This record gives sequence, C-alpha cells and structure tokens, in this order.
Amino acid sequence: MSATVIDGAAIAAAIRREVKAAVDALQREHGITPGLATVLVGNDPASATYVRNKRKACAEVGIASFGYELPTDTPPQKLLALLDELACRSEVHGILVQLPLPSHLDEGQVLGRVPPEKDVDGFHPSNLGVLGIRGREPRFAPCTPAGCIALLERSAIPIAGRHAVVLGRSKIVGLPLALMLLARDATVTICHSRTTDLASLTRQADILVAAIGKARFVTRDMVRPGAVVIDVGINRIEDARDPRGYRLVGDVDFEEVRTVASAITPVPGGVGPMTIAMLLWNTLRAAECSVPK
Amino acid sequence: MSATVIDGAAIAAAIRREVKAAVDALQREHGITPGLATVLVGNDPASATYVRNKRKACAEVGIASFGYELPTDTPPQKLLALLDELACRSEVHGILVQLPLPSHLDEGQVLGRVPPEKDVDGFHPSNLGVLGIRGREPRFAPCTPAGCIALLERSAIPIAGRHAVVLGRSKIVGLPLALMLLARDATVTICHSRTTDLASLTRQADILVAAIGKARFVTRDMVRPGAVVIDVGINRIEDARDPRGYRLVGDVDFEEVRTVASAITPVPGGVGPMTIAMLLWNTLRAAECSVPK
Repeated sequence: MSATVIDGAAIAAAIRREVKAAVDALQREHGITPGLATVLVGNDPASATYVRNKRKACAEVGIASFGYELPTDTPPQKLLALLDELACRSEVHGILVQLPLPSHLDEGQVLGRVPPEKDVDGFHPSNLGVLGIRGREPRFAPCTPAGCIALLERSAIPIAGRHAVVLGRSKIVGLPLALMLLARDATVTICHSRTTDLASLTRQADILVAAIGKARFVTRDMVRPGAVVIDVGINRIEDARDPRGYRLVGDVDFEEVRTVASAITPVPGGVGPMTIAMLLWNTLRAAECSVPK
Repeated sequence: MSATVIDGAAIAAAIRREVKAAVDALQREHGITPGLATVLVGNDPASATYVRNKRKACAEVGIASFGYELPTDTPPQKLLALLDELACRSEVHGILVQLPLPSHLDEGQVLGRVPPEKDVDGFHPSNLGVLGIRGREPRFAPCTPAGCIALLERSAIPIAGRHAVVLGRSKIVGLPLALMLLARDATVTICHSRTTDLASLTRQADILVAAIGKARFVTRDMVRPGAVVIDVGINRIEDARDPRGYRLVGDVDFEEVRTVASAITPVPGGVGPMTIAMLLWNTLRAAECSVPK
C-alpha cells in the first residue's frame, strides 16, 4: 500500500483563489480593501523573509499590507504604542507581529495587546481560549493549525469520532490544533517530550500529527497501517548533493511512513503552504467583519 | 488491594484554613478585606443554594460577599451594566456569575464581560486560553479543575510524565482540567460522547478523571490496576432507604473501582468540597493582586 500524498500546494492555491474572489467582491460591493499590518522587530533574516513572503501573498490576492520594521532594541512601550495605533486605524483589519520577538520583549504582553478582532494570527489568549469549546466559533484560529484542519477537510478525511494523536504542545501549533480537533469531535491525545512509551500512543492514532521539530522522528513502526499522517515539521538536514548544502525534511520519515499510512502530507509542499493561505483567509474574515451591518 | 480514599473534605478544610490565615494577614498588613460579588439571575433553587453556600464559606474565612439577585427576565444590557459597575468597584475583587443563566442571556457574552482580573471562576476566554501553556501562570484557574489538581498535589500523586485520561470536555471541568494536566507535563487524552472504544483508552490511564455526569459509568473493567481515579460527577440515584428518596453517587462505581485503583475520590466528600475552597483561594489571590506594589 502506498499513501495518498496530500497536495498542500494545490489546496493552498485553491484557498488563495477563493480569498481573491472574496476580496474582489468586498471591494466591489462595499469599497473595502482588506489590510494587514506586519510588525517585524529586529533583523533576523528568516523572520524578514517570512514577512516578505506574507506581504507578497497579500498583494497577489488584493490585500493591502502595511509593513512596520522596528530596531532590535525597541523599548516595549514603543511597540505597544504602535499596536495601539494600529488597533485604531480603520484600514488595518489584521495585525501580525512576527515571532520570535527579541528576548527583552514579553511575548505574552505583546500578543495580548493586539485587539482580538484584529488578531489574524489567532494568538491572543481570548481567541485561543475558545478553540476547544464546541459551539463557540473562534474569531480567528492560528494559521498553521487551521491549515492542518483545512487539509483534512478538503481531502474529505473524517475527524469526528477518530482518535487524533498530536505530537507537540506548542501554543502556535500543537495545543491549538489539539483543541480544534477536539471541537470537531475527535478523541484527542496530546504527547510531548515528557511522554513515556510514545510509540504505543502514536500507533493508536487514526490521525497522527507531528509538530515537534525533530527531523524524521516518526518512523514506520510508530504508525498504524491506514493512519492519516500530517507532518508540520520543517527541518534542515545536511545534503551534499543539494547546492545549498541542506534540504528540508519533516518530522516524519516520509519514504518509510508513506508505505503504511493511508494519506500523508509531504515536506515541503504539505502543511507549509497552508500557513500563509490561512493568514490571508483570516485577514479577509477580519475585513468582512468590519462591514457595517 | 483497596484504594486509598482521597479525603476531599479534609483537604478542602486545610485550604480554607490557609485562606483564612492569608485573609487575616492581608487585613492586618494592608487593611484590605477580599470581596466577592455573586450575581444570581432567576430563581432556580439549586443555583440559589450554591450561591448561599459560597457566601457562607466566604464569611467563614473573612471574605466579604455582596449578593446581587436579578429577575429571570433581566435584559442583557442590565446584567452587562451591573458587571461593568462591579468591575469598577474597588472593594469587589472577584465577580462570580452563577451558571446556568436563563436561556435568553448569551453566556459567552456575559462571562466575557467579567474583567479577567476579577474572573475568580476562571471562565473568561483569556484566562482559559493560557491554561495549557507552560510558563504562563494563569491568573485564575476554574475552581473545580483547580480542586482536582490540588487533590492530586496534596496527595503527593505525581502528574508529570503520567498518562491522564479525562472523560468529558466541558468548558467548566473537562477541557480546562485537561489543559492544566498538560501544563503539568502529563500526557493527556480527552474522551467524550463521540469517543469509540472508550474502555481501551481509560484502561491506559495512570490518572483517570470522570466528568461526564453519568451515574456509576466507570466500572471496574475500565480501570487499570493501580490507577488514580478522580470522580467529578455528582448524580442523584433513587434510593428508597434514604429519607430524601435519593442519594448522590459519582460518575465512577466507587465500590467496584476502589478494589483496583491505587487512590480514588469518593462522592460525596471528594472533589465536591474543593470547588468552593478554590473559589475562596481565587478570591484571596484577586485581592492580593490589588495590593499596591
């Protein structure tokens, strides 16, 4: 048996097209252009690349983006004051603070200052707090977990009643994804670095999600035949044959696991492209909510 | 083997004594008397009893309580206005809205209007949202789950690295308790009405929590020998020998399960007394946070 490979790039492209059509409609019918403010503190090259890619994706679907770049030594009060200003600006529907922040800034305080109704990254505690509650539609779900759910749903993979095992409990991926699976009626097990006898748990999964940042950690023997495997990891491993000297692999040993799983996401081209697609989706939703009723 | 019976009444009494000592110290050193406002909408007799018991418990430890009783048909705006007023009053450190609310009131809206820093029930989304995040100390944890954790900790039962299986995913007990166990490094499985093959999951639990409201649902064969069993359920069953015509039992078949578990909470006298003890604890904490630094 060889698993169906879930094509994240194609699903993300379909979502972007849907967002573009809705952005056009919003402009045509209400004269509203969705706007995203990106806030980058410091000069980490990877973060700068992420922000650039997000703004480029905005442009492609007709979302306006406003880039703010602050020096590494920005005092907390200055960053908070910028967020307060962006909170008030009506052309800014979404605010994204690129993580990680320099260590002198309190991430919890900063993310808590983004108003929940502009929190398109879904990291405000009050948005996280409703994720696991059935019947409480969260304003915004964090983009990577929302992307995982969209991959499942658009691949017609049932979630309700299935046992989902999530490896990793970060507040950015593992934890919110576990809550979103729970809200969709999965039975959910959350595993992490302190879990004992991990393989006995992963082998029970109908849906196995790996979000731990360890290259090819999930091996064939850890996966039940027929399971659906979602690989959130993006890890560099050395590869002399690649001109860059490395290549990207996930948290799952793709070549091995695809021989037992029923469906699997590749890396790259699986969950990765979904994150930005869901950011665009959230920004669109924020703008739609600003339409006077 | 017969399980150790965890004496919730004794542990709750110890916590109340600790709260009383801290309340006395706060009064003596800062002239502050912790204050709890209770808001009861409608005339459900059970709710009225709960509120009365909470206010009585406040009085016993020196916490002032302010009771507000509103008619069943209270318009939403009137209730919200009361909450806003209580938010401003400096002698009110904690605000408790007794649930359930009459059906015309939007519970999410009402609970979201209690300021997070006075949310001693721990139901505000922004307080729920940080529960599962390690290193983010929640301001207030919901009282019943906090009581379950206190029972484990004060019985010296280790949580880290253990597999905790939680039956039930309510936002009042199951879900926040699962998050609190996760933050304490348990591996956590959340089961519910849509879970298939429940017994195979419960039998894996080192710590099994039942919070589903079904009398004696958890039977001996569902429990691994040596497991710790926490029974949150309080259910009435008919009992002709009892003068009331009923007696209270938990979600666990206590007599059966005590023969296999290593420790178990009884009903009544287990988790039940802890809820009010933790409410007093949270109200004390809210008052302590109001001390000028």
